[in-house]
Amino acid sequence: MTVFTDLMAFNRETEALAQIAGRLGWDQEVMMPRGAAEQRGEESGVIEGLLHARRTDSRISEWLAQAEAPDATGQRALALIARTFKRNACIPARLATEIARVTSVAQGIWADARAHDDVARFLPTLEQVLRLRREEGQALSAGGFGVDAYDALLDGYEPGATASGIGAMFDRMRPRLVALRERVMGSGVQPAALQGNYPQAAQLALAREVAGAFGYDWTRGRLDLAVHPFSSGSGSDVRITTRVVERDPFNCLYSTIHETGHACYEQGIDAQYLFTPMGQGASMGVHESQSRIYENQLGRSRHFTSWLWSRMDAQFDHFEVRSPEDFYATVNRVQPGHVRTEADEVHYNLHVMMRFDLERALVGGELAARDLEDAWNQRFAHDFGMPVDKPLHGMLQDVHWSIGLFGYFPTYSLGNVYAGCLHQSLRKDLPALDDKLAQGQTGPATAWLRDKVHRSGSLYRPAEVIERACGFAPTEAPLLDYLEAKFGEIYRL
Amino acid sequence: MTVFTDLMAFNRETEALAQIAGRLGWDQEVMMPRGAAEQRGEESGVIEGLLHARRTDSRISEWLAQAEAPDATGQRALALIARTFKRNACIPARLATEIARVTSVAQGIWADARAHDDVARFLPTLEQVLRLRREEGQALSAGGFGVDAYDALLDGYEPGATASGIGAMFDRMRPRLVALRERVMGSGVQPAALQGNYPQAAQLALAREVAGAFGYDWTRGRLDLAVHPFSSGSGSDVRITTRVVERDPFNCLYSTIHETGHACYEQGIDAQYLFTPMGQGASMGVHESQSRIYENQLGRSRHFTSWLWSRMDAQFDHFEVRSPEDFYATVNRVQPGHVRTEADEVHYNLHVMMRFDLERALVGGELAARDLEDAWNQRFAHDFGMPVDKPLHGMLQDVHWSIGLFGYFPTYSLGNVYAGCLHQSLRKDLPALDDKLAQGQTGPATAWLRDKVHRSGSLYRPAEVIERACGFAPTEAPLLDYLEAKFGEIYRL
Repeated sequence: MTVFTDLMAFNRETEALAQIAGRLGWDQEVMMPRGAAEQRGEESGVIEGLLHARRTDSRISEWLAQAEAPDATGQRALALIARTFKRNACIPARLATEIARVTSVAQGIWADARAHDDVARFLPTLEQVLRLRREEGQALSAGGFGVDAYDALLDGYEPGATASGIGAMFDRMRPRLVALRERVMGSGVQPAALQGNYPQAAQLALAREVAGAFGYDWTRGRLDLAVHPFSSGSGSDVRITTRVVERDPFNCLYSTIHETGHACYEQGIDAQYLFTPMGQGASMGVHESQSRIYENQLGRSRHFTSWLWSRMDAQFDHFEVRSPEDFYATVNRVQPGHVRTEADEVHYNLHVMMRFDLERALVGGELAARDLEDAWNQRFAHDFGMPVDKPLHGMLQDVHWSIGLFGYFPTYSLGNVYAGCLHQSLRKDLPALDDKLAQGQTGPATAWLRDKVHRSGSLYRPAEVIERACGFAPTEAPLLDYLEAKFGEIYRL
Repeated sequence: MTVFTDLMAFNRETEALAQIAGRLGWDQEVMMPRGAAEQRGEESGVIEGLLHARRTDSRISEWLAQAEAPDATGQRALALIARTFKRNACIPARLATEIARVTSVAQGIWADARAHDDVARFLPTLEQVLRLRREEGQALSAGGFGVDAYDALLDGYEPGATASGIGAMFDRMRPRLVALRERVMGSGVQPAALQGNYPQAAQLALAREVAGAFGYDWTRGRLDLAVHPFSSGSGSDVRITTRVVERDPFNCLYSTIHETGHACYEQGIDAQYLFTPMGQGASMGVHESQSRIYENQLGRSRHFTSWLWSRMDAQFDHFEVRSPEDFYATVNRVQPGHVRTEADEVHYNLHVMMRFDLERALVGGELAARDLEDAWNQRFAHDFGMPVDKPLHGMLQDVHWSIGLFGYFPTYSLGNVYAGCLHQSLRKDLPALDDKLAQGQTGPATAWLRDKVHRSGSLYRPAEVIERACGFAPTEAPLLDYLEAKFGEIYRL
């Protein structure tokens, strides 16, 4: 017991430090003066270095060898600590340091290349990051994490997921998504796009109202503006950010709902897990399932949007959409586009599939970074039936690869798939939910998700979380059924 | 050389961590959701514990024994690291932990007692904090820092200062300050107090303008609202806070100018000292000299206030003060009052002298915490000629003792004294300064202070900083001369 207690006490401090590092990241995006970037880089490097040193501290392997957990929760804690330790122990210190160093400046280089719409400025960095992360993946794979480098990286974001499993899932999803897209685009129905100008203050007031409606606890969080919306922190300090585009209020609103989903997950984790290995969401995929079910299955539902329509009509002068029905169609307008983050529910996973294949080829060595732009553009034209007009709308659009996030994209689709499963079960358990949604009340849904998903944090493996909540192993079928039913109705297919 | 390099590299990480801890403190006061206090307490405890462990790391004494500095700057770095190490090494770990634990909750208890104007709620905590800090002071004194416990604590804030030296200085200051106060209060001149209501947005706009006028670099800082104004951070991330009282715009304005003084000091330190022992202000007293010279000698000067009057007249509708002369007198209105932070330049040091005597008696054991309220009230009535009407205006007004800051108050008066010296020299070197101040330009004064004080950070001992800047050892005479001349003119003495 003493060994177990010692290990947990040591880990508790590491978790607290990780929270501090996370808060520092929030500050960097939201509050930091622009002249402080270089100094902050060094500060962040120090705390990340301390975290790495603690997570690979040689005492952990001794503690793990001797520790006896008092119960199943303690066993799960030991397993999670062991996993983190073993993953980190696979990576040579030299490589870890170089990855930290290179990726800390890579985002700035990507942002600069993006601002100048210039792939050439980004290529040397992409090559470097790719080489380092491939080396890391190979080291992890050799250490028993995944059958190859890509699998090993994917496993870092979604424990237990494999590229072959994801690939097979995508193969099952693609035909039905493509068929749905074709029918939608061929239908005579053409919902109007939103026009007009929506002042920032009113957008933010509505965003706050909507976050509160979804159950976001303002005493344990706050909303600020940032270039890219994100959620950050765990326990009683979980902050969200949003952005405002005055001609497109959906950007702010649905970004806020999305981040509220992430934040409610973290806020809903049992307080006893704070500063333990169970104190955060179970995986990136499960996390994304919460943001996506809030954003789409609930936030873009017919009944919730009818309430949202009335709030927008009240909040904005001369709101042009004159009926909740029209508003519902506009919110769910299907339109092929270049940008993943702006994609509708029908197109979204097609964007991810493309990135999954490209990044597998990159990490596997079949595709060189210098050939990525051509590969991207060809694949995009094939999958979306339109050319990429500029790199900003092509391979430069996402930050992920610049900071080394290879293997991360599939978790977005896993999130959608998990959300589909959860939504199906939630609807069965809450037959009267629509009445509440029509009044802007998502309380019963949030309570269901808190009970079935949030509360347990990382106590269970990702797929296990969904299976315990739904009673069946996660599958793409509920998501596809939902999409076909929803868009079939809107587009009168 | 390798040993020296190793020690500096280790210390650099410690300094970076200290910056992170400071930013966390800023976040706590300015941004943190109110429900996060308990969680934050644990996070702060972890980073403070890490800092303490690093500052008392046994390797430091080995490194110090062998390190050879390459130059005088390196020697100063070694001396400062040795001082910090030796001070920390005097304090038993048990005591350090208990002080951290007790003072982390003591501020909340004090705030609660203050909110209820109830000394009894605060007394047990005060007794505990006092006992611990006395023990700490005794341990430090036994280790060679100061002749007694109080001296040892004072030396922590103002290296080289002694209670006997401060006491002698106060004995020289008191008669002239009391005489000046008597003459002012007996004069027929009675400047009007400011009336009216000043909207928050306009106050903040003017505060920003004034901070910029004083040379605050907005690319390396930001201004936010907080309950108590403060400045935080070093190098390229130095943030200030202010507060707004709508009926009293001077509160916001002069708090902002005061914190701008602290911030410009940190921003002005040579960038090569960042993350070294020289990378922060030389002492609390020297720091306060910068905030006070900005606030008083410059910010409340006849010429600067003539510009400020025109800006207030432009910023606020129906601004009631109709001439810069009246405004100058109003800004410098002398009025006895209970609260130190609201005191005018004539009364301010009398507030500090009283606290100095009381806290010396507390730490020395001649005064028990339970007798403090009576002692405070008697002394206040004696020194200020008016009774204390409630504890909120008496011994509960300052946060300092609750968080263990015994020995800190004298640095406020030292700051005033240093500011007096610097102002005398600055005026000699910049004969045309008033022409600039009358245009709201403090640039030449800020440049002089940056060159003479800010740039060197902690390269020199506190008194040495002033002596190098002024050409003479710091003395109270210039401050008293300045006060007598300034208020003699305003009150036509």
